[in-house]
Amino acid sequence: MDWKNFHKEQKPLIEQKIKEFIDELEEDNILKETMLYSLNAGGKRLRPFLSILIANLLSEDSNHVFPFAIALEMIHTYSLIHDDLPALDNDDLRRGKPSSHKAFGEDMAILAGDALLNDAFHLVLKYSTTKSLKGAIYLAKSSGGRGMVLGQVLDCKISENKRDLEILDNINLLKTGKMLMASTAGTALWCGANEKTVNILENYGKNIGLAFQITDDILDITSNEEMLGKPIGSDSKLNKSTYPSILGLDNAKKRAETFVKQAKNELQKLEYNEFVEMLFNFSDYIIERKF
Amino acid sequence: MDWKNFHKEQKPLIEQKIKEFIDELEEDNILKETMLYSLNAGGKRLRPFLSILIANLLSEDSNHVFPFAIALEMIHTYSLIHDDLPALDNDDLRRGKPSSHKAFGEDMAILAGDALLNDAFHLVLKYSTTKSLKGAIYLAKSSGGRGMVLGQVLDCKISENKRDLEILDNINLLKTGKMLMASTAGTALWCGANEKTVNILENYGKNIGLAFQITDDILDITSNEEMLGKPIGSDSKLNKSTYPSILGLDNAKKRAETFVKQAKNELQKLEYNEFVEMLFNFSDYIIERKF
Repeated sequence: MDWKNFHKEQKPLIEQKIKEFIDELEEDNILKETMLYSLNAGGKRLRPFLSILIANLLSEDSNHVFPFAIALEMIHTYSLIHDDLPALDNDDLRRGKPSSHKAFGEDMAILAGDALLNDAFHLVLKYSTTKSLKGAIYLAKSSGGRGMVLGQVLDCKISENKRDLEILDNINLLKTGKMLMASTAGTALWCGANEKTVNILENYGKNIGLAFQITDDILDITSNEEMLGKPIGSDSKLNKSTYPSILGLDNAKKRAETFVKQAKNELQKLEYNEFVEMLFNFSDYIIERKF
Repeated sequence: MDWKNFHKEQKPLIEQKIKEFIDELEEDNILKETMLYSLNAGGKRLRPFLSILIANLLSEDSNHVFPFAIALEMIHTYSLIHDDLPALDNDDLRRGKPSSHKAFGEDMAILAGDALLNDAFHLVLKYSTTKSLKGAIYLAKSSGGRGMVLGQVLDCKISENKRDLEILDNINLLKTGKMLMASTAGTALWCGANEKTVNILENYGKNIGLAFQITDDILDITSNEEMLGKPIGSDSKLNKSTYPSILGLDNAKKRAETFVKQAKNELQKLEYNEFVEMLFNFSDYIIERKF
């Protein structure tokens, strides 16, 4: 099967599972409504999709990884809600809809983000076994003060004129890469994979994470608002240092291609199966996507 | 030993463990500094203290519960940081010091809160065993969208003129009670206690939680700013419905006493040891404290 068909098949299942788990975790009230508003804003579900793909690649039952996969999406969603807040990126639109604080107020956006983060761990803990605990720990490390949140902090605090390629890579590795590494290597640990496999998938996640962020920066210049679902050129408006502003557009594209190539090279170390091939072909999507 | 002496003995150990675990979890950077600023603002450490006390009551080694106890304090601290934000309670002072967003800016306060919440679960997961996992799940349920965060949401969203005693109790049970229940019943589960003991300690935590909040409301009227470490009368300034405003000061005091009495009655069901006695005597402190 082509990865795109697998994605088409899995996306509705992922969205069904989001509904089921949120129903299981939350009471019907304004908080749940606010959480679901952002969870249902219609993303590509890349993180849970990668998680399900890795599970299949490791011949693991999808049902075993669904709590982990949905927790990834919940954490990703909380981070978008908080990132959009006026005190951070101050974005009024997210995926073409008013961002959470525009729709529900800043107080609710802060609290819905908190609830999503908290309840992602509730979900993971509830379905943790002795075997899967290592994956849960990897997730917590990836999303927290040594991972994604640190990336957000550095992105706030390092002044634009100080950002060279190394600093930009580090911020993006933390902000974007860590949660993709949690989707790949974290899932592998959740499934009890051996160290070699975990390392390969960690390097894979890291490389596509960096390629993903470079592509985001490129799309911010070259795409249009309707496709992107948010105001175009929002980075350059804020005079933000991005890969294109540091490297130029062509070299930025080349750099993203190099990371994708490295990601693919990692996968060559795995024993072949159809899911390894899907993951291999999926890598190109990271830089070829239009939004 | 008197509970006050036990508290005097345990508080520096708790603060040492906060330092150790934060050093273990975080890199030296502005994020860690912001987290430690609030963690070291000098609270009474009631939640970790209760956790250590319960561990001793159950003849469990304190070292086994320290990660759980410190996670309780980290979650409590994150909730204070986010509660103080302009979009929520808009408090400039916390424990006599500028609140996190006043000291570091709103962006850092939001992210430091996120990191504390996230890394509290990192800590709990890292030290979870098959035996203690139930305690970790109880904690996540207590702090999240069915617990503390829901309490904060209801506190934001239910208009003051609609708050009767029942609604006020429910908000406070969620906002304050749940994390005290996590400190007592959650710790018991973390230690593998039986269902009967867990239930007793859950009811105990619930009752002192309600008594605690009534006392907070009373102190907001009767204490002074220096003792309380925050502007006095901040509730009435906002025209907030509180226990004294609904019941009158005397009846509010009586109600708090009733909850403490119920808490103590619960403890009578446990087999006597010196830590049960400490917990029994500690109950009075909840309503007798001056700040």
